Amino acid sequence: MKYPQALQNLIDRLAILPSVGQKTAERYAFHLLNQSEERLEALATAIKELKQKTTVCHSCLTISETSPCAICADANRNRSSLCVVENSQDLNAIESTKQFNGLYFVLGGLINTIEDVGPETLNINKLIKRIQAEEIKELILALNFTLEGETTALYLGKILKNRIKITRLAKGLPAGSDLEYADETTLSSALKFRNEIK
Amino acid sequence: MKYPQALQNLIDRLAILPSVGQKTAERYAFHLLNQSEERLEALATAIKELKQKTTVCHSCLTISETSPCAICADANRNRSSLCVVENSQDLNAIESTKQFNGLYFVLGGLINTIEDVGPETLNINKLIKRIQAEEIKELILALNFTLEGETTALYLGKILKNRIKITRLAKGLPAGSDLEYADETTLSSALKFRNEIK
Repeated sequence: MKYPQALQNLIDRLAILPSVGQKTAERYAFHLLNQSEERLEALATAIKELKQKTTVCHSCLTISETSPCAICADANRNRSSLCVVENSQDLNAIESTKQFNGLYFVLGGLINTIEDVGPETLNINKLIKRIQAEEIKELILALNFTLEGETTALYLGKILKNRIKITRLAKGLPAGSDLEYADETTLSSALKFRNEIK
Repeated sequence: MKYPQALQNLIDRLAILPSVGQKTAERYAFHLLNQSEERLEALATAIKELKQKTTVCHSCLTISETSPCAICADANRNRSSLCVVENSQDLNAIESTKQFNGLYFVLGGLINTIEDVGPETLNINKLIKRIQAEEIKELILALNFTLEGETTALYLGKILKNRIKITRLAKGLPAGSDLEYADETTLSSALKFRNEIK
């Protein structure tokens, strides 16, 4: 026996989500089956309106309601500091620290030699144009501390370091970490970038 | 900064799915953002039609397109054997073995003393009525081999064993298992229910 067609149809469509296989999609579909019609309607509407009610900011390339986005349009932000992030989620993570008052630029990915993602697929040309057009003094590379993030930072450093001051996020022990369980790479960075107590 | 409202709205609505928190919902929402309008429309429609195009079989209580469902309506099935399962997914799992030609009954849950799910919340009264009304000779309890499944099987055994023959799924080593890594409960069952080679 198969599931009723409407159910199987939903299972198949839910399985397009990342890391969601047949079993998880089934679990989601059966969970939705126990929700009220109103909640299902609301979820369906939210999905339909997702692209209709959002756009991409032409300046920083983040997902936004308006273009330019609220951050790019904010006259109180420091326009000489540009924070380069991989995607809108990372932008949001930095923004929620409330420690950065500059502008952002979304790279749209990281160089990944294994998955054949080269620098030409990222928004690097747009970044260069923005550096040329605006009075940016510092480029902060806020990229993952992974092979892909490091590769991308090295690449950006190589092509841009003669034009602009480039900094990167500090590497070291994360909050709440126990030295005993810290991995070698983290510990090496923490040691290399140690600070003097003044 | 928050995400655009349409995006945040979808994230909140996706977070109702089981084991989906804020982070996973964000990941799903951003993935959906990269899909075509057509695919989003199709997913939205599938969600809306889920309850409209499905029903519950009045006889076995499984989710179905029709009531009675295709299995209950099938004249070629053996009506003297009734397989009791927890839910429609388990029914589907047994049905896909193609080894069972009887009918099913969906219990709608398992007794769970920790989460305060008592026998009165399950479809046990409907099961008893069905046993009284139809000529069922054997009740096969196809329930999880977990504390909840065992408790439910014991309970059903207690209240029904004088009325009808009750059997349970065999317990033992699963296919592809390595004795060395089998847990004690499984191994104990495998030993207790050992078969003679004839």
